[in-house]
Amino acid sequence: MTEIRKNYIRPLDIKHGQVDMAHGAGGRAMAQLIEELFAKHLGNEYLAQGDDGALLPAPGAGRLVMATDSHVVSPLFFPGGDIGCLSVHGTINDVAVMGAKPLYLSAGFILEEGFKLADLARIVQSMAAAAKEAGVPVVTGDTKVVERGKGDGVFITTTGVGIVASGDELSGRAAQPGDVILVSGTLGDHGMAIMAERESLGFESPIVSDTAALHGLIAAMRASGAEIHVLRDPTRGGLATTLNEIAQQSGVGMMLQEKALPVKPAVSAACEFLGLDPLYVANEGKLVAICAARDADTLLSAMRAHPLGAAAAIIGSVKADPHHFVQMTTGFGGKRIVDWLSGEQLPRIC
Amino acid sequence: MTEIRKNYIRPLDIKHGQVDMAHGAGGRAMAQLIEELFAKHLGNEYLAQGDDGALLPAPGAGRLVMATDSHVVSPLFFPGGDIGCLSVHGTINDVAVMGAKPLYLSAGFILEEGFKLADLARIVQSMAAAAKEAGVPVVTGDTKVVERGKGDGVFITTTGVGIVASGDELSGRAAQPGDVILVSGTLGDHGMAIMAERESLGFESPIVSDTAALHGLIAAMRASGAEIHVLRDPTRGGLATTLNEIAQQSGVGMMLQEKALPVKPAVSAACEFLGLDPLYVANEGKLVAICAARDADTLLSAMRAHPLGAAAAIIGSVKADPHHFVQMTTGFGGKRIVDWLSGEQLPRIC
Repeated sequence: MTEIRKNYIRPLDIKHGQVDMAHGAGGRAMAQLIEELFAKHLGNEYLAQGDDGALLPAPGAGRLVMATDSHVVSPLFFPGGDIGCLSVHGTINDVAVMGAKPLYLSAGFILEEGFKLADLARIVQSMAAAAKEAGVPVVTGDTKVVERGKGDGVFITTTGVGIVASGDELSGRAAQPGDVILVSGTLGDHGMAIMAERESLGFESPIVSDTAALHGLIAAMRASGAEIHVLRDPTRGGLATTLNEIAQQSGVGMMLQEKALPVKPAVSAACEFLGLDPLYVANEGKLVAICAARDADTLLSAMRAHPLGAAAAIIGSVKADPHHFVQMTTGFGGKRIVDWLSGEQLPRIC
Repeated sequence: MTEIRKNYIRPLDIKHGQVDMAHGAGGRAMAQLIEELFAKHLGNEYLAQGDDGALLPAPGAGRLVMATDSHVVSPLFFPGGDIGCLSVHGTINDVAVMGAKPLYLSAGFILEEGFKLADLARIVQSMAAAAKEAGVPVVTGDTKVVERGKGDGVFITTTGVGIVASGDELSGRAAQPGDVILVSGTLGDHGMAIMAERESLGFESPIVSDTAALHGLIAAMRASGAEIHVLRDPTRGGLATTLNEIAQQSGVGMMLQEKALPVKPAVSAACEFLGLDPLYVANEGKLVAICAARDADTLLSAMRAHPLGAAAAIIGSVKADPHHFVQMTTGFGGKRIVDWLSGEQLPRIC
C-alpha cells in the first residue's frame, strides 16, 4: 500500500446542476445526493441510521394500518402546492381516514435524467415542511434514475404506516341506511388548480389546490363523540367515485342534494368552461364523513370549528337500495344518477 | 327516476389489451383493472377490504422496521426473474437484513400508456408467486398511468414493514475489528444477467439472476447461535459499495482476499468482456454477514446448509482503520483499495 487515495468531491451544485444517471447507481454520487439533498431537508433520527431501512420504536397497542400512493401529478408545481407536499398529504390522509394515527412515511423517488436539482430541492423541502407540520417523519427512502424520456421529472411513491386502537377502525363498509353524509369543504379545488395550470386558464385569482393533511381535523371530529361510520378522502374520481365505492362496499344507496354541494364560484366557472363536473374532480384536502343521523349536527359543528372544515356541509343521506345507486336531487327538482366516472377525465391529477 | 341504467362492462382483454390513461383515472376502468388483474392474482383478506389502505393485525411486541425500494429495472423480464418478483424480494431483503421478520408489503405501480396487459399480468403473477412463497402478502397498492413516452412500461415501488424483538435489531454500525466477513454465495449474478440480456450477449448457458427472498436463510443463520453483527444485501453498487457503506457506518476498515470471492465462471467472463468488476455488480439474492471471529465457522456451516447459502464463503475480516478503507489482497500478493463505485456503472439494474 504505497498510496492512499483521497476523494475530493465538490458539493452538489443545487443551483445549476441536474440529475444524471450516476445519482441512481448506488455509488458515491448517489450517497452524495442523499446526504446533501434528501437527508439535509428530511433529516431525522431514523433517516440518519443510514441502513437500507428504518428501525422504529414499538408502535404501541393496536392494529397496523398501511397505505401507499404513487404520485405522478403534472405539472409538478401548481398553485397551493407541488408533488412534494402532495405526496405527504395524500398518504397521511389514506391512513387517517381508516381511523389510524399516522406514524411514519417512506418515500421512493424515480427521477428523470436531466431533472434540475433546484426543482428537486424545492420539492424535497416542500415534503419536509409538510411532514414536519403533520408530525409524521419520512423515515426511509429510495432513489432511482431513469434515462431522459423514460420518466417525467420526478415520480414519488409514499407509503404510510399508522396505528389504530381496536374498535376505532373505520372502513367503507359501515355506512347504514339513515346515516347522514357530510363533506369537509368545497369540492374540486385540487383538480381544477391542476387543470387551470395545465390549460393556462387566466383567471383573475388563481384556483388554489386544497392539498392538506387531514389527521388533525379527523382527531377533532372523533373527539366530538359523534358516531362516525365512514371517512374517505375523495381524491381521483372525485366525490362521485368515492361515494359509489362506499355504496358498493356497504351495500347501500345514497341520495345527495345538489344545492347542498359546496363548490367555489371560480371552480364552478372553470369546470363549466372545460366541460367538467366538480363531482368528479379530485380533492386533496377534503373528506367525506358518514355518521349516525342523530350526530350529524354535532359532527358538522366539530368540522366547522376546525380550519380545514370551515366550509363543511351536510350533503345527503344513506338509503337502502339493492342497486347501490348514488342519486342526486337536482336544482330543478329532478333526480339523476351520479354514476362512476367511466373513463379518463383528468389524467395525472395526483 | 324512470330509468335504471345498468353498466355492461366487458371483461378486460388481458391477452390483447393495453394500458390506457383511464386505467389510472380513479373511475370504473381503474376499478376493473384492480379487480380483474391485481386483486385476482395478489388477492388476500387485506386487499379484499377495498379501502384506500389496509387494516392489519396488531404486529406484536417489538420494534417496527420499514424499508422501501422503487424498481425501474430494464429490461422488465430477464433470465431468472422479472420486475415483479424482484420488487418483492428486494424489499423483503431490506427488512430482513435489519433482523426483522417481514410482515407486509405495499406496491405502487406507475404504468405507461400502451403497456401490454399481458405483460402486466405476467409481472403481477410473478409478484404474487414471490409474495406467496415468502409468506409476505401485498396488502395494499396504488396504480397510476402516465402518457406514452413519460414512463417505461412499468415501475414498481414496494414498501415492507416488519417487526423485530428488542435486542435482535441489526444495523451497519456494529462491525468490530477482528470480525469475520462472509458472503452467502456467488457475486454479480443479477447484474450480469441484466447486462447480458441488454447487450444480447450470446453465452452458451445464460447467466441467471439470483433474485430471491433471504429471510429464510437469515432465520437459519440466527438460529445457529452465531453472534452476527451486521447483515446487508449487496444490491446496487455491489459488494464493494456495501462494504464501504458498512465500513463508514461502523468506523472500521476491512481486508478482503480476492481468491476467496466466489464468482461464477460465466459471470467472470461476461464481466471481463464488458470491462466490469464483479465486486461492483448488483446481487439480488445474496447477503454479506459480519460476525464475531469465533463464530465464523458455525455461521458458515449454517449458511451452507441452506439452499440459498450453498456457495457461502469467508471472504475477509474487519480491521481497525481510521481511514475506513476497504482493501483487498490480490491474487498476485499485492494490495489494492476497493473504493466506492464512483459514477454510473450499471444503470437501472433493479
